[in-house]
Amino acid sequence: MQALVLAGGSGTRFWPLSRRTNPKQLLALEGGATLLQRTVDRLRSLVEARDVWVCTTAALADAVAAQLPQVPRAQVLAEPEGRNTAPAIAWAVASMPASRRGEPVLVLPADHRIGDDASFRAVLADAAAAAATGRVLALGVRPRWAETGYGYLELAEPLAEGTGPRRVTRFVEKPERRRAEEFLASGRYLWNGGIFAFRGDTLLSLVERHLPALSSGLATIARAPRRLAEVYHTLPAISIDHGVMEKLDDLATLPLDCGWSDLGSWEALAEVLPRDRDGNSVHGDVVAVGCRDSLLWAEEGTVAVVGLEGMVVVRTADALLVLPKARSQEVREIVDRLRDDGREDLL
Amino acid sequence: MQALVLAGGSGTRFWPLSRRTNPKQLLALEGGATLLQRTVDRLRSLVEARDVWVCTTAALADAVAAQLPQVPRAQVLAEPEGRNTAPAIAWAVASMPASRRGEPVLVLPADHRIGDDASFRAVLADAAAAAATGRVLALGVRPRWAETGYGYLELAEPLAEGTGPRRVTRFVEKPERRRAEEFLASGRYLWNGGIFAFRGDTLLSLVERHLPALSSGLATIARAPRRLAEVYHTLPAISIDHGVMEKLDDLATLPLDCGWSDLGSWEALAEVLPRDRDGNSVHGDVVAVGCRDSLLWAEEGTVAVVGLEGMVVVRTADALLVLPKARSQEVREIVDRLRDDGREDLL
Repeated sequence: MQALVLAGGSGTRFWPLSRRTNPKQLLALEGGATLLQRTVDRLRSLVEARDVWVCTTAALADAVAAQLPQVPRAQVLAEPEGRNTAPAIAWAVASMPASRRGEPVLVLPADHRIGDDASFRAVLADAAAAAATGRVLALGVRPRWAETGYGYLELAEPLAEGTGPRRVTRFVEKPERRRAEEFLASGRYLWNGGIFAFRGDTLLSLVERHLPALSSGLATIARAPRRLAEVYHTLPAISIDHGVMEKLDDLATLPLDCGWSDLGSWEALAEVLPRDRDGNSVHGDVVAVGCRDSLLWAEEGTVAVVGLEGMVVVRTADALLVLPKARSQEVREIVDRLRDDGREDLL
Repeated sequence: MQALVLAGGSGTRFWPLSRRTNPKQLLALEGGATLLQRTVDRLRSLVEARDVWVCTTAALADAVAAQLPQVPRAQVLAEPEGRNTAPAIAWAVASMPASRRGEPVLVLPADHRIGDDASFRAVLADAAAAAATGRVLALGVRPRWAETGYGYLELAEPLAEGTGPRRVTRFVEKPERRRAEEFLASGRYLWNGGIFAFRGDTLLSLVERHLPALSSGLATIARAPRRLAEVYHTLPAISIDHGVMEKLDDLATLPLDCGWSDLGSWEALAEVLPRDRDGNSVHGDVVAVGCRDSLLWAEEGTVAVVGLEGMVVVRTADALLVLPKARSQEVREIVDRLRDDGREDLL
């Protein structure tokens, strides 16, 4: 079995900690190992490091390889540019040895958080077993609240315990609050975890059928590897969800119950970090007086705070972010402002 | 006429900007010149720089002298240790040339803010004229609200406009809220501004009468300047208010209406700084989204803030302070904590 870790993200949701050259997947948001390292580490016993492939961007490839010395350097693929997940996944699968096309491939985002590695591995093993028979699986996370920030997988019938792979009837984009609540109540929806399992040959033949332009582009690249950048630029920039998965009549899923989070914001991180008795999550040199329920992060220097409640404070060597947890998404506006102001040093 | 600027303060109320070696009076809290420099500059046309004396601590003397190149270096006096204002003032006055003992001396704290320099100077000129006749004046600030953080001067009768020096019946320590409100309503109280005017010989004879130990200590120092540190250590550590001013039957005052503030906290600074249309006072590289009524200070690096209201955010090269304006006084707790933790690097 092989694994493909998607590590091309360049999100700014953890600014000022995350930067273009140091995005979320390369950060140790929970201390110790980085999200990328944890993603590979937790496959241990299921997928050997020599069978792990990573797809990232040219700008990040060296940093990714440095964090994963156990992964063969040739298997850290550097996209010439980001063109969404369908080209990334298809190119990576096409790059795997032809002799192993009959084996399952697990596709995993590099920047998610898993609370319970063992139960995650157990589901991945089941998914790989199903994939080995030729099925395609998009793993889903059993929803824990009516989240409006995630996509959903709709099932034909409500989930019951202990059943095997279930058929996905469709992908649903981020719903409105009311619909999200219906989804949660119905028991017929899972959060789309962006985790897939399929055989290499299965995926490539599906790409050939549903995204012929991608398929022929990859064939060109295989014949003339030097033309990678030129050809990659012409590949259809589409997600694997839209480009392939949504078009399958027999897409399957398995539910994950493993403390999954996409760590989509400082607030989401605060949800999973340990807290002290005042409800604060503290990183680095922090002096807090009368603060509650706050995320206080001193990457460099000293952070001294008084009387904060439900706030995020993050200090790095060159920047500082302070905002209410509930407005974590608005870090985007800060980053937009910096970009508009040409503050490349801070991006 | 001579002036004596008291620049020995080592307050921590502007931490993390103010430090032991860089206290408030050495900071440019309103941009441009420092509080110390402004204190000397605004005497211009009233007192020549060559007639300005500064009393500070040994640790600060070089920095003080560097900020005031126009003041003769020998007139920047370095106390071996802080022993409150009576020794500082009496020692400085005793250090002035004996030939000028008959001239008025204006005593001014180095770390106060004056909004209207011209009207301040006009009152100082009146005070100096009164002092020239042998009177002692403690200048008072016409109260603008029922402040509980200041001392007050009580007058025999309510102030009227355009009258000359008025008799002070007593000094009142920081009052409770209710009393402060009575003070304000009565029109018989002024905030104690810590600004004095007297002739040198008047002050020295009053010290001789009311603080004979201080007087004889200064005589010893005059005879044996090498024994300064040893003798200074034995001088009575008492304020000029308690040691001398309170004991006078004929202490006089003049009211100041000049945008005075002792800048006693980040909140007090925020009151006087210019504000943008959102009510924010901004210093340095700040990106603010949806913030109101906040003091946002980037001494070094970038400060990015979202959704703050009534907050103080101050970032320096090594530290950060975030607190609600209304809790500005609690910076003290941060500094105490740092001291308890032996964080000399941050004090």
